[in-house]
Amino acid sequence: MPAASEKAERFRALHRSPHLFVLPNAWDVPSARVFEEAGFPAIATSSAGMLVSLGYPDGEGIPRREFLAAVRRIAERLSVPLSADIVAGFGRGPATVARTVRAVLDAGAIGINLEDEDPRRDRLVPLGRQVAEIRAIRQLGESVGVPVVINARTDALTRPEGSAEERFREAVRRARAFRDAGADCVYPMRLTTAEEIARFLAESPGPLNVMIRPGLPSLEELERLGVRRVSFGPSASYAALGLLRRIGREVLTERSFRSLLDGAITFDELNRLAVARAPGAPPPGDESR
Amino acid sequence: MPAASEKAERFRALHRSPHLFVLPNAWDVPSARVFEEAGFPAIATSSAGMLVSLGYPDGEGIPRREFLAAVRRIAERLSVPLSADIVAGFGRGPATVARTVRAVLDAGAIGINLEDEDPRRDRLVPLGRQVAEIRAIRQLGESVGVPVVINARTDALTRPEGSAEERFREAVRRARAFRDAGADCVYPMRLTTAEEIARFLAESPGPLNVMIRPGLPSLEELERLGVRRVSFGPSASYAALGLLRRIGREVLTERSFRSLLDGAITFDELNRLAVARAPGAPPPGDESR
Repeated sequence: MPAASEKAERFRALHRSPHLFVLPNAWDVPSARVFEEAGFPAIATSSAGMLVSLGYPDGEGIPRREFLAAVRRIAERLSVPLSADIVAGFGRGPATVARTVRAVLDAGAIGINLEDEDPRRDRLVPLGRQVAEIRAIRQLGESVGVPVVINARTDALTRPEGSAEERFREAVRRARAFRDAGADCVYPMRLTTAEEIARFLAESPGPLNVMIRPGLPSLEELERLGVRRVSFGPSASYAALGLLRRIGREVLTERSFRSLLDGAITFDELNRLAVARAPGAPPPGDESR
Repeated sequence: MPAASEKAERFRALHRSPHLFVLPNAWDVPSARVFEEAGFPAIATSSAGMLVSLGYPDGEGIPRREFLAAVRRIAERLSVPLSADIVAGFGRGPATVARTVRAVLDAGAIGINLEDEDPRRDRLVPLGRQVAEIRAIRQLGESVGVPVVINARTDALTRPEGSAEERFREAVRRARAFRDAGADCVYPMRLTTAEEIARFLAESPGPLNVMIRPGLPSLEELERLGVRRVSFGPSASYAALGLLRRIGREVLTERSFRSLLDGAITFDELNRLAVARAPGAPPPGDESR
């Protein structure tokens, strides 16, 4: 997989740059392609966004085959690297999770996001098992020659158990173990304030991913704090569906098409988003300049 | 198909009411469900929106199986009637088009939109063949006991051939033939001004569909003119992707998350859109009141 290997290296390098990068999470072909055309250097999928678009609540209720087909549709039409959100790996244990990652690489992604909350039980995956899964992904990448970029998410901060301090310490403990197991970046869900972020990076130095949400510091401050990766999470799905809800209500209650017609793209622009950028086309970002 | 039959009758009745109704075109599960929750009495698909979401330009380049799976995903999670845009029928001739409609009914839709421009050749389908296809759909509906609602689109006004007057007369000729063959509604693409709409209805009376586009008269005026069905076409896809483009540019050039966070729905609202409305839930529209 020489092209995949090169894309993975390019994506990994973003995590090691002194600058922060923003990673937009898409859910289907045009949402991914419109972000590519806007100039983002890489694209990720959002499990919630992608699964809901196919009619499944977030989790692992979607058939594996249907999930992989959705990743492949996007990967085949993108030029920039794609990171796939694989929830908790679609199954338990290192061998199963490595098989999922192998299938995701075959589908064309070169990075994965793996979370440590068990979607079948309402609890965190035991740390030993999660670490073994991360190691297995790293080994799989070595065996197929793709330095797959591993983003290791922890939900320790979102759990109801324990005090806030205990949750924070558990998140740090997990982040350290994930880095030691070969994760390229750690992603503590719900880490938000400048104070928390600074403490987290002091206790677990290395590439850190935070999600865009209300209350997050500015990109300038996040960069100053040392954050490397800022991802949309499902927020672009929330925004797009919020717009459709407004459109529906405006039409039904105000008899107006304002939000439907304002700021829209055209038929030709829509169709262009279905296909990969033509060879020799301007690099991402040029169109918006 | 008793439930399908009832849904088809309910959808057909909307075309025979003295009032106009607005039909929003969706492309995936949450876009359809958010319009259902907003209170629309029926939902349609947009071929351009749906095909591009799956990575194919508008037309019939998508594998039939993949197209039908997308219709089924939406139909299975909607309570209100669903009309499927089947482009030009996914194949040529009455038997092939009837087979497509049979598969679309099996997938859970109860109405179809059939256009008369051949997506493989740059020309209108010969009128005799299009009429035979509409007759075959009507017969298929009778044979399976579902009064499938047929929306017969003509692209005569959009063709480059002839004068504007000649194009208009061809569109009227086709609309009359389509109504005679059993179409429930006719849909002249690009019919826009009040003057054109009034003349069209004078020359081909009956249920008329117009598409929302810049320059269209208000819903009040359209109702006064006698229009029965006003559809979004691909415009909600244009709007949603326009928003994603703005989000991308804002993040990259202004370092701002404003459009990403403003007016968004929540995680729980997103997940709710993946599944059918619970039995006993309030009827569509109640939530926005």
